[in-house]
Amino acid sequence: MTSGGGVAAKQAALYGGIDLGGTKIQAVVAGARGRVAGDARVATPRDGLPGVVTAMAQALGQAAAAAGCSTAQLAGVGVGAPGPVDADAGLLLSAGNLPSWDGPFPLADALAERVGAPVRLGNDVQAAVEAENRMGAGRPYRSWLAVWWGTGVGGGLVLDGRSWVGRGAAGELGHVVVRAGGARCPCGRRGCLEAYAGRGPMEERARRAAARGEKTRLFRIMERQGRGRLSSGVWAEALEAGDPLAVTLVERALGALGAAIGSVVNLLDLEAVVIGGGLGSRLGQPYAERVADAMLPHLIVPERPPAVHVSELGDRGAAIGASMLAQVFRGRTL
Amino acid sequence: MTSGGGVAAKQAALYGGIDLGGTKIQAVVAGARGRVAGDARVATPRDGLPGVVTAMAQALGQAAAAAGCSTAQLAGVGVGAPGPVDADAGLLLSAGNLPSWDGPFPLADALAERVGAPVRLGNDVQAAVEAENRMGAGRPYRSWLAVWWGTGVGGGLVLDGRSWVGRGAAGELGHVVVRAGGARCPCGRRGCLEAYAGRGPMEERARRAAARGEKTRLFRIMERQGRGRLSSGVWAEALEAGDPLAVTLVERALGALGAAIGSVVNLLDLEAVVIGGGLGSRLGQPYAERVADAMLPHLIVPERPPAVHVSELGDRGAAIGASMLAQVFRGRTL
Repeated sequence: MTSGGGVAAKQAALYGGIDLGGTKIQAVVAGARGRVAGDARVATPRDGLPGVVTAMAQALGQAAAAAGCSTAQLAGVGVGAPGPVDADAGLLLSAGNLPSWDGPFPLADALAERVGAPVRLGNDVQAAVEAENRMGAGRPYRSWLAVWWGTGVGGGLVLDGRSWVGRGAAGELGHVVVRAGGARCPCGRRGCLEAYAGRGPMEERARRAAARGEKTRLFRIMERQGRGRLSSGVWAEALEAGDPLAVTLVERALGALGAAIGSVVNLLDLEAVVIGGGLGSRLGQPYAERVADAMLPHLIVPERPPAVHVSELGDRGAAIGASMLAQVFRGRTL
Repeated sequence: MTSGGGVAAKQAALYGGIDLGGTKIQAVVAGARGRVAGDARVATPRDGLPGVVTAMAQALGQAAAAAGCSTAQLAGVGVGAPGPVDADAGLLLSAGNLPSWDGPFPLADALAERVGAPVRLGNDVQAAVEAENRMGAGRPYRSWLAVWWGTGVGGGLVLDGRSWVGRGAAGELGHVVVRAGGARCPCGRRGCLEAYAGRGPMEERARRAAARGEKTRLFRIMERQGRGRLSSGVWAEALEAGDPLAVTLVERALGALGAAIGSVVNLLDLEAVVIGGGLGSRLGQPYAERVADAMLPHLIVPERPPAVHVSELGDRGAAIGASMLAQVFRGRTL
């Protein structure tokens, strides 16, 4: 835990939350219950960690301005980091997605100095789960599975109302095996869910198919959208246009998601599943329902399937959850 | 909850526990902490439920005699049933494995009348998990997975020290998907763990291979052991003899167990895995270690794998757990 300045508790305290991603930095300023008063988003700089810290402070400054305050007036700032952290020491331990990474970085101190408020680090996926649990799609349920369907496939579990983290590394839904000995996953293993449903591996497969001469509009849409990658928006547009390669690859992903989620439900008998992440949020409820359809044939108790919802907080969920993380400062000695 | 008679609490109360299986009935008489004072086993009659109740009473009577008491002196009797029960009403709701089954059966009342002690029904898998948790291989751990490897593949989870049952149907490890679209499972679905690792499907596959002319000693061993099925003892002897078909099928099962257990560990980050069930207990620690080896390549945090143990209570575990179930009577009004 790291303090960036003595900020007195106010009547209606505001908190900052930052979702630090490999391509974008999402910031929010929110009340104690997660109601967003201002938000901002900037691209993640590619020129090293000092630049990343500057961009985080800038995004938070814009979000604070939109909420009518300065960052120094925030009661606390939480950061959802894309890798393991040492929360007590305020260290980001690893973050392969960030540029010029070279070992543990004192992110909490560095950011606190820039924003003039205490900063607490946490995990981005856990932050998003906590936000959906307290004020999003998970709120009506005691026990549910979060499926963050994006470049990779992240997961989170709420059991009896509380986040389940195991020995600290739980939630690796993307590395549930759906086909032993099957497709190669970015993690190096075979047959993981992510190898079929991660947007990264889906793009690789699309590139190989296009190189083989398979017809697809995916890459023309990508160029027209001014992207260098098959973003969620590119996939969505290609699906709307009925592009056969996009349809085939998304159906393959849905089949794998159905098998993995069905397995988890058979094991844990959960009340609900919440689908979020870049692709999950972008494709929305119709595709959440297709995930539910793909899950059903695998359920051992098909008469009582879990409810399947799309996340309510979308791509601001992790930032909102990070703002909740900041509240651990209140009522404690810094 | 059903009372079979008013039994006064004694200084050192003894409890009865019965594991009601499709082929055998295992009974124990045990102290409050599960220490076994007497046990007995009889074959499950094939001539209908009244015969089954008689055999249960007989097995319990033998166990009580071995413990130096009568069944009427027991403070309570628990039954681990091989299907869903209504514990409060004392009803066995379904039990496909039992002969002449035709709908909900008041097993608690029927048995209580025969043994002169109150009877409480529960689930056999849950009973075995509870016993391993309180006095077996699960005792050192807060969070662990039970793998009951037998005719089917059952499972159980202990999370933060307590059995996790979800909405009542959790623990279906056998129906975790290890190969989407793969082998047909006895449940009718495809690619479930049980389709590869259940002793039932393994026997079916062995019979088809033998019918195709594949060389195997499995069925000769079965006949010499006087069995009509490939029991765990038959598999164990064939493996010891290096029978190639037995080795191939068990390796296939180990691969599927490794994938499914690896998936669960990636999701829940558990401290330990306990392998029991007919085949798991019979093959013992060397094969538990082979399951651990098969799991390792799937782990996303391979540096910190869960401990893998064989169950300590073996095939009496469910009966011992059932005797613990009976203790819910103590300190309560019947």
